Amino acid sequence: MKQATIIGSGLVGSLWAVYLTKAGYNVKIFERRSDMRKATISAGKSINLAMSYRGWKALDEMQIGDEIRKISIPMFGRTMHALDGNKTYQPYGINEQAIFSVSRGDINCKLMDIAERTGNAEISFNEECIGADLQNGIVHLKNTVTGKISEFKSDVVFGTDGAFSAIRYNAMQKIDRFTYSQNYVEDGYREILLPANSDGNYKLDKNTLHIWPRGRFMLIALPNFDGSFTCTLFMPFEGHEHCFNNLTSKEKVNTFFKTVFPNFFEMMPNIADAWEDHPLSSLAIIRCFPWTHGKVALMGDAAHATVPFYGQGMNAGFEDCSVMYSLMKKHSEDWPKIFKEYETIRKPNGDAVQDLSLLNYVVMRDKVADPAFLLQQKVERRMAQLYPGNYFPMYSMVSFSDIEYQVALSKGKEQDKIILELIKQNNITNETSPEKIDDFIHQFFGETIKK
Amino acid sequence: MKQATIIGSGLVGSLWAVYLTKAGYNVKIFERRSDMRKATISAGKSINLAMSYRGWKALDEMQIGDEIRKISIPMFGRTMHALDGNKTYQPYGINEQAIFSVSRGDINCKLMDIAERTGNAEISFNEECIGADLQNGIVHLKNTVTGKISEFKSDVVFGTDGAFSAIRYNAMQKIDRFTYSQNYVEDGYREILLPANSDGNYKLDKNTLHIWPRGRFMLIALPNFDGSFTCTLFMPFEGHEHCFNNLTSKEKVNTFFKTVFPNFFEMMPNIADAWEDHPLSSLAIIRCFPWTHGKVALMGDAAHATVPFYGQGMNAGFEDCSVMYSLMKKHSEDWPKIFKEYETIRKPNGDAVQDLSLLNYVVMRDKVADPAFLLQQKVERRMAQLYPGNYFPMYSMVSFSDIEYQVALSKGKEQDKIILELIKQNNITNETSPEKIDDFIHQFFGETIKK
Repeated sequence: MKQATIIGSGLVGSLWAVYLTKAGYNVKIFERRSDMRKATISAGKSINLAMSYRGWKALDEMQIGDEIRKISIPMFGRTMHALDGNKTYQPYGINEQAIFSVSRGDINCKLMDIAERTGNAEISFNEECIGADLQNGIVHLKNTVTGKISEFKSDVVFGTDGAFSAIRYNAMQKIDRFTYSQNYVEDGYREILLPANSDGNYKLDKNTLHIWPRGRFMLIALPNFDGSFTCTLFMPFEGHEHCFNNLTSKEKVNTFFKTVFPNFFEMMPNIADAWEDHPLSSLAIIRCFPWTHGKVALMGDAAHATVPFYGQGMNAGFEDCSVMYSLMKKHSEDWPKIFKEYETIRKPNGDAVQDLSLLNYVVMRDKVADPAFLLQQKVERRMAQLYPGNYFPMYSMVSFSDIEYQVALSKGKEQDKIILELIKQNNITNETSPEKIDDFIHQFFGETIKK
Repeated sequence: MKQATIIGSGLVGSLWAVYLTKAGYNVKIFERRSDMRKATISAGKSINLAMSYRGWKALDEMQIGDEIRKISIPMFGRTMHALDGNKTYQPYGINEQAIFSVSRGDINCKLMDIAERTGNAEISFNEECIGADLQNGIVHLKNTVTGKISEFKSDVVFGTDGAFSAIRYNAMQKIDRFTYSQNYVEDGYREILLPANSDGNYKLDKNTLHIWPRGRFMLIALPNFDGSFTCTLFMPFEGHEHCFNNLTSKEKVNTFFKTVFPNFFEMMPNIADAWEDHPLSSLAIIRCFPWTHGKVALMGDAAHATVPFYGQGMNAGFEDCSVMYSLMKKHSEDWPKIFKEYETIRKPNGDAVQDLSLLNYVVMRDKVADPAFLLQQKVERRMAQLYPGNYFPMYSMVSFSDIEYQVALSKGKEQDKIILELIKQNNITNETSPEKIDDFIHQFFGETIKK
């Protein structure tokens, strides 16, 4: 039987194991950590995830989408909380399109179960990858409990061990002419759990992603199944009026929340006590190339770790699986050919999803509080409703389609310019009637389509 | 006695040991390789070095400049070899200013001798740095011969272990929010030894740096003491008419040299036989930040490895030593303060020397064959002669001064624009008489200085 090795049993590694077993491989997964299904491992380093089109597509391709749907909560739009408590709602798409909140821990456990139940994938825990012979498909391992050193050889090896990938650090980075960069944004994040009401009910609307946009920083909240919300504060580490390094006491934490997130503080007056429940973490963009060498390929965050602001990290990783699988069929499992094409077509999309994520940070923390931006998005959504085949907003291309990320990025930027110009030329404002907006849209597409 | 550790007994490590012993430190140097003074180690991965002002300044500060001068050969300018054999000469500076060719092996051996004879610096060879406790100044070592693992603790630690620094990979890169990038240019290089004539004489003028500029690629030659020249061919790896990947046979190597470097081929008709004497190597720019953490600082290539085209890699590393030493005095050996200021003032200069090096590749391989560029440099040199306090060409700022690299870069770019505009406005050509050029320079500076 053909043998494959996967380093890392995270989201992408576990899903990729399902794909490989389906393709007839015997799969051995080595995971540095212990089994999160048995011991409680802090999810401190993870915000809730948002599954969207690309993620579902990959899961459905393996017929496991419905199992994951059972543990996910649809969010149909964003709810913005202004300083004065005013709320603004903005749908993500048209026709009830949604992104889905899912806990990283829950989905990871489920995907490991699914991989194992195929009967052809085995996960070995507490096995750290300390090096690799890339040409010969051999990984070097150290058991973190016993200290035992071992090696494992297989026909093909996949590094799905995340942003700080050990196989990338310990093997790929040492090959000649390997381009590599790790860059941290100047902001960090801290997770906060907003508990359910005593009756188990949600403290906020459940089917929306909540944002408290404050220009240079923001708080967000995603729903959990138990009535709680996983909230995340993104903010500069230092050098700004509001930054993590200034919040050095419970008093300062209280004052900060009372001042900038008053309606959140009302819901969670014990915020200062909960402040240290989760660590302060940093946010990196990691780029590298090549993604493959010899018998080894990097997938997911190991190849293109991004900041989380477009909710696309997991989706992009799952799409790597779809793409690699389609190339396996196209090239009849000729791995050198598969790897070459995989990295050629996926690298520009890895770069693009990172650029998109950086762009969307500014959108989330700042632009969503800007009436001009909300108007622009309203017009775009209406265009997409009236001319669904002719107009696709950037957010929709990214979240509700599998249009390549690089196309979504370049086309989205182009469209932004056109829409802004149209709004200006036609004197559209937030007061313009829906009929007038429709008129101007019909006029625009009438001309465009004629061309 | 105060104890310091240095990782790497290369050029910067050996010189920095001399500085530290002078400051009253007992110095322990750990070097991964064996003692190059005892065994012959290939200098295959090194082109000859060019010592210029910053390097001499640091050596003279330690009163060892004259010892190094004895093993260096002045080069007063560049000699360009055109395809038809025509030669053009361009002085580097004014008043016989020169850069100095020195063999990496020779100067490294000499600097190790000098460090050891201080009596307070000891070099341990075959000791590989496999990790470090940055906060506590502990380095973890593995003897490459015996396999023995050990550790060494000291008051302060310096990583001078080059572009592929082990202490940076194994310790610094793992700290949170460490910015890091390694980027390879698309060109590689191969060294070629052009032997002396049978009578021991030089085959080319000795006191100049020879360049065969060919637009997208180039060959250079630097003199050695024994009558030979160390030559280096810089060229794309692939994807161009002339690239390393095309030179797959002796015949192709011969044809290549006959076609594009005919006068070199005449001097070295056995080039195809010597082709594989030295390996094909790649060229990287490595950037990182911070350069210091806890008790550890990176210096030289470990902090800011550059491509070699400005001949400033060693000079920049030696300048790191000058700067660190001046900060030791300024801050009375308060290392946290020294490290903070060191990385703050040196990082922009590390970036600038890399940018300058990339710029100068285009100058060397292409621009020096362009009459318009040679005219510009002639005018600049004359300006510097007539108004030495008022005009300093970029090359002179970099090579014949210790003006900060970042200032040389920004001011040099500004000046370039002004000179080009002046040449155009005054219709200066290569045929313009020296008197007319002087007139226009006097007029320009008359106006400028009045302002």
